[in-house]
Amino acid sequence: MNQPARLASIKKPLPDELLQALKNLLEDRYSTALAVREHHGRDESSYDAMPPDVVVYAHTTGEVAAIARLCHHYQVPMIPYGAGSSLEGHILALRGGVTIDLSQMNQMVAVHAEDLTATVQAGVTRKQLNLEIKDSGLFFPIDPGADASIGGMAATRASGTNAVRYGTMRDNVLALTVVSADGRIIQTGSRAKKSAAGYDLTRLFVGSEGTLGIITEVTVKLYPLPEAISAAVCSFPSAVDAVNAVIQTIQMGVPVARVEFLDENGVRAINAYDKLSLPEKPLLLFEFHGSQHSVQEQAGLVQQIAADHGADDFEWAMQPEDRSRLWAARHNAYFALLQLRPGARAISTDCCVPISRLAECILDTQIDCERHQLIYSIIGHVGDGNFHVLMMIDPHDPDEVATAEGVNSRMVTRALAMDGTCTGEHGVGMHKMAFLIQEHGSDAIQLMRSVKHAFDPDNLMNPGKIIAWEADA
Amino acid sequence: MNQPARLASIKKPLPDELLQALKNLLEDRYSTALAVREHHGRDESSYDAMPPDVVVYAHTTGEVAAIARLCHHYQVPMIPYGAGSSLEGHILALRGGVTIDLSQMNQMVAVHAEDLTATVQAGVTRKQLNLEIKDSGLFFPIDPGADASIGGMAATRASGTNAVRYGTMRDNVLALTVVSADGRIIQTGSRAKKSAAGYDLTRLFVGSEGTLGIITEVTVKLYPLPEAISAAVCSFPSAVDAVNAVIQTIQMGVPVARVEFLDENGVRAINAYDKLSLPEKPLLLFEFHGSQHSVQEQAGLVQQIAADHGADDFEWAMQPEDRSRLWAARHNAYFALLQLRPGARAISTDCCVPISRLAECILDTQIDCERHQLIYSIIGHVGDGNFHVLMMIDPHDPDEVATAEGVNSRMVTRALAMDGTCTGEHGVGMHKMAFLIQEHGSDAIQLMRSVKHAFDPDNLMNPGKIIAWEADA
Repeated sequence: MNQPARLASIKKPLPDELLQALKNLLEDRYSTALAVREHHGRDESSYDAMPPDVVVYAHTTGEVAAIARLCHHYQVPMIPYGAGSSLEGHILALRGGVTIDLSQMNQMVAVHAEDLTATVQAGVTRKQLNLEIKDSGLFFPIDPGADASIGGMAATRASGTNAVRYGTMRDNVLALTVVSADGRIIQTGSRAKKSAAGYDLTRLFVGSEGTLGIITEVTVKLYPLPEAISAAVCSFPSAVDAVNAVIQTIQMGVPVARVEFLDENGVRAINAYDKLSLPEKPLLLFEFHGSQHSVQEQAGLVQQIAADHGADDFEWAMQPEDRSRLWAARHNAYFALLQLRPGARAISTDCCVPISRLAECILDTQIDCERHQLIYSIIGHVGDGNFHVLMMIDPHDPDEVATAEGVNSRMVTRALAMDGTCTGEHGVGMHKMAFLIQEHGSDAIQLMRSVKHAFDPDNLMNPGKIIAWEADA
Repeated sequence: MNQPARLASIKKPLPDELLQALKNLLEDRYSTALAVREHHGRDESSYDAMPPDVVVYAHTTGEVAAIARLCHHYQVPMIPYGAGSSLEGHILALRGGVTIDLSQMNQMVAVHAEDLTATVQAGVTRKQLNLEIKDSGLFFPIDPGADASIGGMAATRASGTNAVRYGTMRDNVLALTVVSADGRIIQTGSRAKKSAAGYDLTRLFVGSEGTLGIITEVTVKLYPLPEAISAAVCSFPSAVDAVNAVIQTIQMGVPVARVEFLDENGVRAINAYDKLSLPEKPLLLFEFHGSQHSVQEQAGLVQQIAADHGADDFEWAMQPEDRSRLWAARHNAYFALLQLRPGARAISTDCCVPISRLAECILDTQIDCERHQLIYSIIGHVGDGNFHVLMMIDPHDPDEVATAEGVNSRMVTRALAMDGTCTGEHGVGMHKMAFLIQEHGSDAIQLMRSVKHAFDPDNLMNPGKIIAWEADA
C-alpha cells in the first residue's frame, strides 16, 4: 500500500547541526544507514516502509529528553520505536525525522512484589518482564501475542488474550514517565492503586501512540500466579455456535482468564504450521485461573454451556506443556496464516462490539470475506467482543488492496452501528484515522485535536497518526 | 472555614438578559431564592456555603447544552450539581454564576442486560440504578457510601467499599455524554468493553470535577449478582495488626469484594449510633462474592490470616439482614462520628498508598491525631491502600481548623513520600489543590492546565477547582 503523498511532500532534510548534536550525544547509538532506517520505518502492517532520516538508540529518560529538546529546537519530527510489532502503520516516519529506538531501554527500574507493582523502562518486553519476576510468584498478564515492549503496549493501549479477566493496558498501567514535545520529563501518577488526584494524564498517554509524548518508563500492576491453571479446547458446528457459547459464558459471569476463537481457516493454518491435528471446525480455546476447586467449577460450567451449543468434544490440557503448545499455536496464527499464501502480506484489522452482538458481527464479516473470495481468517479475543480479520493479500495489487479495505470498512461500519468501536486493541495508527472520525463525530475529534495542540503545538510527535493536524488534513 | 477572598472578589452580577433567557428556557425550574442557592453552594465539606447567583434544574442533555451556550455567551461560570455529597468543596460557587442541578435528570436511558451495561442520566443515583436493574440479575458495584448521583460519581472518580474487587469509576465507566464549555454535545465512547480508538476522552472527563465539561449521561458496566455473598467481622488487638492482615490478604490475591477498617473510635461511634455491640477495638469488615464454594474458600483463607494477626474472633454474617445491618452501620459512620461532638462539622480527608506501606501510614497518622487531642476516626477501604481521617471540629475556630489542616497536610506528605496519592477517592475540589501540585510536580500540572485551557478557554466550568487557572493563582 502506498502512503499519502501529501505528507511525504512536507519532508525536508534535517539540519546538519541537529545530526551532529545527536551524534555527539549518542555516539555509536546513531545510524543513518538505509537498512537501519528502513527497518525502523515499517511495522507489521502491509504498508511499505517510510524510513526516518536518522535512528538513535536511547538508554535513559534523560537521553530521550535531550533528544526531544534537540528535535524541538530544530522543529523535527520524533517517532518512538519499541519492538516494531504494531499493526496499523503506527511508526512509519511520514515526514521523516528522528526515530528514537527505545529497545535498549530494557532495564527493570523496580519490582515491588509486596505491592504487586513493577516499574520498567519502556523497552522491556512483556516476556522479559515475566522472566524477571518469575521467582516472585507474580506475573504480568497482558499478552497481545507479539513480544511487544511494555512502552509500546502502553502507547497503543494493547490488550490481547488475558484482557477478558485482567483488563487492558488502560487498566494495568499505574503511572508513566513521559518526555514531552519540548523535552520535559513528566511523572503521570504514583504507585497507589487508585487516585482521584486531578486529570488522568496516565490514561491520556495510554493509547496516544507517541503523538502526545514519549513514554520512557511504565509502572504496571502485577498479579499473584494462580494456584491452578487449566485449559480446554472445543470445536463447534459453526462460528455462530461457538460465539454464542462465549456470549452465554460472559453473561453468566464465569471469570474465564482467556477465551479465544479461531475459524476453520485459522485452525487449518495452525494445524499445518504447528503440526497439530485439531478438528478443522470453528474452535474455542479456554483458560481458567483460580484455586484448584474454582478452576474445576469454571470449567464444568463452560463445558455444559459448550455442550448446549453443540460442541462435540471438550479436550483438557491440564499439563503446562500441552497448554504452552496450544497457546504457542494460537500466538503463531498470524505467521501460520501468512503461509496460506506465500509471499502475501496480511491486512490485519480488528473491531470490538458489545458482547450480545458479537455472533452477528462475526457472521456478517465472514459472509463478506467469502463473497469476495479472500484468503482470510477471523480470530479473536471473543470474551471481550473483540475479533480480528486477517486478509492475505498482495499489497502491490490495487484491486486486492481495495477489496480488503472494503471488507475492513464494512466491518467497522457494522461494529459502529452495533455501538462498538473501530479498533478494540490495534489502535488507529494511520490506517484507521477516517474511522476514528466516523466513530467519535467531529466535536469529539475536535476535543482530541485540542489535546494534541496543547501537548504538541508544533506537531512534532509522531505526526500524521491518530488525528490529522490541520496541516496534515 | 473561609474561602479565598481573591476569588469571591471576582464575582460580578449576572446580566439580566441571561437571567431572563434562563427563565424562558426553564420556567419554574429556575430559582434565585437564597435558601435554594445556599443549599446548592455547599457540599458535605466543612466550608461555608458560597451560593451561586441562580440555580436551574435541567431535564435533558439538550437543556444543559442550551444553558451552557447561554453561560458561554454571557461568560458566566457554570457549576454542575448532583447529590451534593462531595467532600472537598467541589460545588461551591466561588465566583457565583449558574448552578445546573442535574438531580431531576434521573431517567434510565437504556439497560442492556445482555451486554452487562446500563446508560443513565447523570442524576440517577447509585441506589436508584440498583433498584431499576434488580430484576435483571445484575448489579452496579461502585459504592462510595453516600447515595451519590452516577454523574457526580463519574465527575469525582468515586470508588468506595467494592473497589478492591470491582475497581473505581475509572474502570467502570464505558462512555459519557458531556456538554462542553461552549454547549456542544460530545459522546466520548461506545459500549464496547475495550477500545484503542484515539485519546481516552472518557477517562479524561472521569475525575475532572466539572472543570472540563458537564457530564449528562453515563454508560456503566454491570455485573452478574454473585451466586453467594457472605460477610464477616473480626476485631484485632491494634490497628497495625488489622491492617497487616489486610496486606497479607491482598498480597495472596484473595479476591475479597470488600474489606473495611474502622478504628476504635469508629466502632464506638457506630455502636452508639446504630445500637450495635461490636467489641470496641480496631475492626475489619469483610465481604466475599462468588460461588458457594469459592466464598467459603476465600473466607477460610482470610480467617486463617486474621488469626495469624491476633484476631480474637471472626463472626459470620451470612444472612442478608445481618449483612445489611453491618453495612448500614459502616455507611452511617460519617453521621455516627458527628454525634461524638454535637454541633461539630467533619473535616474528612483521604489518601491512598501502596498496600505494603498502609499500616505505617495509618499508624503515624493515628499518632499525629492523638498528639493533637483531636476527636477523630480513621476508617478506610484498606484493600486498596485507601483510608480516611475524619476530624470533628468547630469550623469557625481557626485554631481547630489549623490543627486539623496540619494533620491533613502531614498525612498527605507522608502518603506522597510512600509513592501514594493525596486523594484516593474524594477528589481535589478546592481543598487539595496545593497537594495536587506537591504530588504531580509543576510540569505535570502545566499539562493538566493546558488541557483545561484547551477545553475551557474562558475558565467558565466550575472555576477555581482542581487546578488554578492563571487568573485564579
